[in-house]
Amino acid sequence: MTTLALTMGRRIRPTPYLPRVMAAGAKSFTVYNHMLLATSFRSLEDDYWHLREHVQLWDVSCERQVALSGPDAARLAQMMTPRDLSRAVVGQCVYAPLVDVDGGLVNDPVILKLDEDRFWLSIADSDVLLWAKGLALGFGLDVAVEEPPVYPLAVQGPKAEALVARVFGDAVRAIRFFRFERLPFRGRPLVVARSGWSKQGGFEIYLDDPSLAIDLWDALWQAGADLDVGPGCPNTIERVEGGLLSYGNEMTRDNTPYEVGLDRFCKLDGPDFLAKPALRRIAAEGPMRLLRGIRIDGPPLAACTIPWALRADDRAVGSLLTAVWSPRLECTIGFAMMERGWWDDGTEVEVLADDSKPAAGRLCPFPFD
Amino acid sequence: MTTLALTMGRRIRPTPYLPRVMAAGAKSFTVYNHMLLATSFRSLEDDYWHLREHVQLWDVSCERQVALSGPDAARLAQMMTPRDLSRAVVGQCVYAPLVDVDGGLVNDPVILKLDEDRFWLSIADSDVLLWAKGLALGFGLDVAVEEPPVYPLAVQGPKAEALVARVFGDAVRAIRFFRFERLPFRGRPLVVARSGWSKQGGFEIYLDDPSLAIDLWDALWQAGADLDVGPGCPNTIERVEGGLLSYGNEMTRDNTPYEVGLDRFCKLDGPDFLAKPALRRIAAEGPMRLLRGIRIDGPPLAACTIPWALRADDRAVGSLLTAVWSPRLECTIGFAMMERGWWDDGTEVEVLADDSKPAAGRLCPFPFD
Repeated sequence: MTTLALTMGRRIRPTPYLPRVMAAGAKSFTVYNHMLLATSFRSLEDDYWHLREHVQLWDVSCERQVALSGPDAARLAQMMTPRDLSRAVVGQCVYAPLVDVDGGLVNDPVILKLDEDRFWLSIADSDVLLWAKGLALGFGLDVAVEEPPVYPLAVQGPKAEALVARVFGDAVRAIRFFRFERLPFRGRPLVVARSGWSKQGGFEIYLDDPSLAIDLWDALWQAGADLDVGPGCPNTIERVEGGLLSYGNEMTRDNTPYEVGLDRFCKLDGPDFLAKPALRRIAAEGPMRLLRGIRIDGPPLAACTIPWALRADDRAVGSLLTAVWSPRLECTIGFAMMERGWWDDGTEVEVLADDSKPAAGRLCPFPFD
Repeated sequence: MTTLALTMGRRIRPTPYLPRVMAAGAKSFTVYNHMLLATSFRSLEDDYWHLREHVQLWDVSCERQVALSGPDAARLAQMMTPRDLSRAVVGQCVYAPLVDVDGGLVNDPVILKLDEDRFWLSIADSDVLLWAKGLALGFGLDVAVEEPPVYPLAVQGPKAEALVARVFGDAVRAIRFFRFERLPFRGRPLVVARSGWSKQGGFEIYLDDPSLAIDLWDALWQAGADLDVGPGCPNTIERVEGGLLSYGNEMTRDNTPYEVGLDRFCKLDGPDFLAKPALRRIAAEGPMRLLRGIRIDGPPLAACTIPWALRADDRAVGSLLTAVWSPRLECTIGFAMMERGWWDDGTEVEVLADDSKPAAGRLCPFPFD
């Protein structure tokens, strides 16, 4: 991975787990929602294999919660997303792309329905708080929009259920995928959801009392000694293999949900939402570009930190947004944004990395498994 | 400075000047508005002295522009700030704290009045774009809110005028402080303002064609060889000495303008704005805490990356938000947020840094010069 030296300061917020994250050997970080997020511990590949085989604690405090509460909370949540929230039940997590009135993606949070009039939007990297506040104020909605002191800790990997059950009890085993329960820790009921940004299974614990952060980390760490618990973080190899998109990487405000394959979350005949007229028009026209998987031959490429051009028939036909070496598939895999007419499975493209001769790539579906 | 390794990726956007910034020896970076910003070149102190004596090119692309245009652009701009914008003229730059309806600071941009119905908000580190979009949509305003491809390059230091005049002509000499002109570069008229985030004088060039970025950097670099032009960036020593506040460091959404000494920008008997009722109430009550300067005895402290407690009479009376060694004043200086009753000049406090025995501090006005 390409790294630079990151200067610390109050503007880049620490997390309450940070002492443990540092002690566990975090090697590199990113900044996400104005907050630190680790990006590797032993190495990207070692972390990857460990995540697939054991269990990891991830400090994902940077998944900030935008809390909507009050009589118009449900209305505001629905205004922001094309996903139909009307049948969501209390205790449910709903992946909900947020879309601007022109169809551009603003964020792609998981929405936790805490109560009929209370939601947490567990956000990706943009200030949804300001978006929601602006809408609430402008539309005169009766809703409070706040960022509460919630610091999610994810427990991910095949042994996650065993570990979380040791600390929170066997009740966790009954939690279904994308559902949550309130389970006590040190006497405080915490939202514990079966969710997380990997495909290895696991939980997210929405700690809403930062003074318990070290206790929570330590309790899980100690309980997991014989499970080979380790530190971890969202892993680029694993998430690309699993087809998990990252806001800011594979989608930005310049993209519609249709361009990045989120069609199934756009319910055009359901409840009204801000982007409905725009998405109806965009859906009717069809997208002009589409995010596809890509496999690239040859040795690992340099890190793709800016989009690389993809060519076919001597013309630019798309760009490579993200690429990573998969040690399991033994090739480079990634996400490519392709122009209309050039996004069919099997399309062969030349990858113009910035440091070497062109590599050969071939489009494919994702996830890659 | 404390640094961590920063992993790169598309989500942390590069700037069009980055190849020159790297070649010039940038040693460390931060992430600001989802974009890279250098934080040091030779060293914080060397950069400081050079800035005070010569001239530097600063890649401040991360000062993103939120462009408001249309019949309601002026109305939207005024809604967001307690500063009276009604008498601003085209060609003027106006420092304008943005305040939420509850009185909390959202950002503190410089607003450039490009035309009667067209403004750029040159923002600090929060997604004002989403805030402005949400308000515009909710209030049904006839205004376009966009982030255009503008990449400011600052030229700062006592020789800045001499340097900018060599590239843009003597017209720059007539530009008054916080005013701008459109001056051509390679045939393209660019907004050139006498402004910038230092107290050493200089200009900001609002390049709106990234394909000219390298040309612009090189033209200034080559023209400044005999002026000892160097690379630079906002310098913590210089900006603290000069009393320039940094959004996210000395002020956040949890602060009102009155708490951080921005009273003079709150015009409560002027045009209406969203926060007016809240600020009237807050102004009447008086702030409960206040940002003050502080001088700290003894050798340089470790970097203050999280607020440190300040004590007096055996009680917590405030916190140190930012501290830096001033090689010119030969002491540590910084900003302290003090509780009511404990903010008078000369108040003596104990500074509880995280790594050493308490240091002795004394409150003072800022700027420190």
